Amino acid sequence: MEPDLNTAASLNAAVHEGLVETDAVVIGAGPVGLFQVFELGLLEIKAHVIDALPYPGGQPAELYPDKPIYDIPAIPVCTGQELVNNLLKQIEPFGATFHLGQEVTTVEQQDDGRFFVATSRGTRFLTKTLFIAAGVGAFQPRALKLDGLDAFEGRQLFYRVKNPNEFAGQNIVIVGGGDAALEWATTFAEQGPNHARSVTLIHRRDGFQAAAASIARMRECCERREMLFMVGQPTGFESNGDRLTAVQITDPQAVTHTVPLDVLLVFFGLSPKLGPIAEWGLDIERKQLVVDTEKFSTSVPGIFAVGDINTYLGKKKLILSGFHEATLAAFGATPFIFPDRKVMLQYTTTSTKLHKVLGVASPVFD
Amino acid sequence: MEPDLNTAASLNAAVHEGLVETDAVVIGAGPVGLFQVFELGLLEIKAHVIDALPYPGGQPAELYPDKPIYDIPAIPVCTGQELVNNLLKQIEPFGATFHLGQEVTTVEQQDDGRFFVATSRGTRFLTKTLFIAAGVGAFQPRALKLDGLDAFEGRQLFYRVKNPNEFAGQNIVIVGGGDAALEWATTFAEQGPNHARSVTLIHRRDGFQAAAASIARMRECCERREMLFMVGQPTGFESNGDRLTAVQITDPQAVTHTVPLDVLLVFFGLSPKLGPIAEWGLDIERKQLVVDTEKFSTSVPGIFAVGDINTYLGKKKLILSGFHEATLAAFGATPFIFPDRKVMLQYTTTSTKLHKVLGVASPVFD
Repeated sequence: MEPDLNTAASLNAAVHEGLVETDAVVIGAGPVGLFQVFELGLLEIKAHVIDALPYPGGQPAELYPDKPIYDIPAIPVCTGQELVNNLLKQIEPFGATFHLGQEVTTVEQQDDGRFFVATSRGTRFLTKTLFIAAGVGAFQPRALKLDGLDAFEGRQLFYRVKNPNEFAGQNIVIVGGGDAALEWATTFAEQGPNHARSVTLIHRRDGFQAAAASIARMRECCERREMLFMVGQPTGFESNGDRLTAVQITDPQAVTHTVPLDVLLVFFGLSPKLGPIAEWGLDIERKQLVVDTEKFSTSVPGIFAVGDINTYLGKKKLILSGFHEATLAAFGATPFIFPDRKVMLQYTTTSTKLHKVLGVASPVFD
Repeated sequence: MEPDLNTAASLNAAVHEGLVETDAVVIGAGPVGLFQVFELGLLEIKAHVIDALPYPGGQPAELYPDKPIYDIPAIPVCTGQELVNNLLKQIEPFGATFHLGQEVTTVEQQDDGRFFVATSRGTRFLTKTLFIAAGVGAFQPRALKLDGLDAFEGRQLFYRVKNPNEFAGQNIVIVGGGDAALEWATTFAEQGPNHARSVTLIHRRDGFQAAAASIARMRECCERREMLFMVGQPTGFESNGDRLTAVQITDPQAVTHTVPLDVLLVFFGLSPKLGPIAEWGLDIERKQLVVDTEKFSTSVPGIFAVGDINTYLGKKKLILSGFHEATLAAFGATPFIFPDRKVMLQYTTTSTKLHKVLGVASPVFD
């Protein structure tokens, strides 16, 4: 299922020039980061949202867009992507600005108490509050670790396919046993605009963690000799000057085979990385940010942590807990943003003020 | 909007005979009580649910079934009744037993650690754990307080209408300015099977907290002389032996009018009542049950409090917070129910075991 492109496009209007002064920056556009925007919005706080992925949605959109989720309250079943789409629709009234495809590299508190935040793309902010909703950290593809292989990354070694037609007509070796490996293998193997010269799929065992239909399609390609499947693991490579020429595959019988190639695609899944967050001076316990359960504040006042990245007594890594945490964090942020105002809880069912904020009509009373 | 009657009917199969021995009793069938059933169900704990109201849904079903709610995560908008219906659908796989239209009167811990629970209808339980999800307490209609008037309750004075045709052909006085007052006034005033001999509506001001359409309909009835509207407040009554004959209404000019009647219907809304909960030996702060934020346990181990009835540092009375609290309370209950088992968090997206519990098919892997 595709994300709602109209929404995603309008959200992508990132502000690149200059320094953005704002009340709130949310790191992470997963479900909890998106709901953080909503709860801030109800309190009339506008947010900028930063995510390393090129689209909103975080883990559910990246890791299980089509898998059903059963434990979101009052939603008997939805897919990861539907969850994300509903949250994007819910936060529409609040006009958050999204800065996607970039990681936060720097967070530094200024003399005036505000936080200077900079991303890998050079976007810079001065914000009164910061909400870390970064899940288990920035996702990045798990690398194939062979000494010296990384020199070919981006030229012949790839962990993502952006333009499949660049690879048409070439000898492609694909390593991995999940949906991505199988889908790209069959896409390049079958007749079509992206048809490769040859496709070899390599996986450590003759079994796949993928949809039954993808597996069947791959088996058919093999039967038609459109592609070759080998059981084994990459243990080395050959190169000729600055050109990668082959990978060495060691099979379960410990026999090593040399497989010539033009392109090496590796799909070992995504791995989370706490990354620069570890350097911001926040209390950390086993790679998680320590927070209180009143405001979900980190050890630095003004910086909150919500969702899977935080830890406290009783913590369960559930999306619904992140929603609660984001709500209390939003209230916890108000003294930093409205130091002179007492912010009261209002209900969306009855508050005319909230109806204005939400852009909906209030029920009419005489 | 009506509750799903098929569901409600199947849920109503209360167990009346004998003493029910069980792992978990949930007091309150509002959204949080219903979601408590879900979270217990995921941990393979079956629950009995008790509510004072005759149907599940609590406040949203009783107070604002048709009002839109905007702050349930990933549900951009839904009515109170839709929220309840979705939760009822979500808990269907777990076969909870509902005991409706009865209040819990007694909770007493036994020597073996279990809790004896009895209701106003005589249903009795022995349970290992108790979850109080009672909102602001049991709802009951706010009474019209005039010395001696309560003697007529159930004969000529009513706070709810069960069978409107019992009142057809009579002289009816209705007091109140909300939807219920207006709807019953017009129902009895207009021609139809429930047509009254006369209808007098009394409210303290010439303005109503009701849907615009109800107000318009009531004004039309007045213009057609089908009913009479008076501004004023009931300050006394007249009776003849054991028969109520009239109410005295004092208008804003301090003039008192006598209005003869056969039936007096009072719609002052519902008022919450902590009631017997105050007597169970739990720590209470300003009519709320004090809980920790790890397990949402009350001061008595084995008794948990979730939703609007509990209080802790940072507490916001929001449904979404109750969902989080119910989740952690379910985990907190496992040592009382499975003392020898370590219960781990599992995810509904990936756990084959949970798919079995939920009664859904797991994705097929090769």
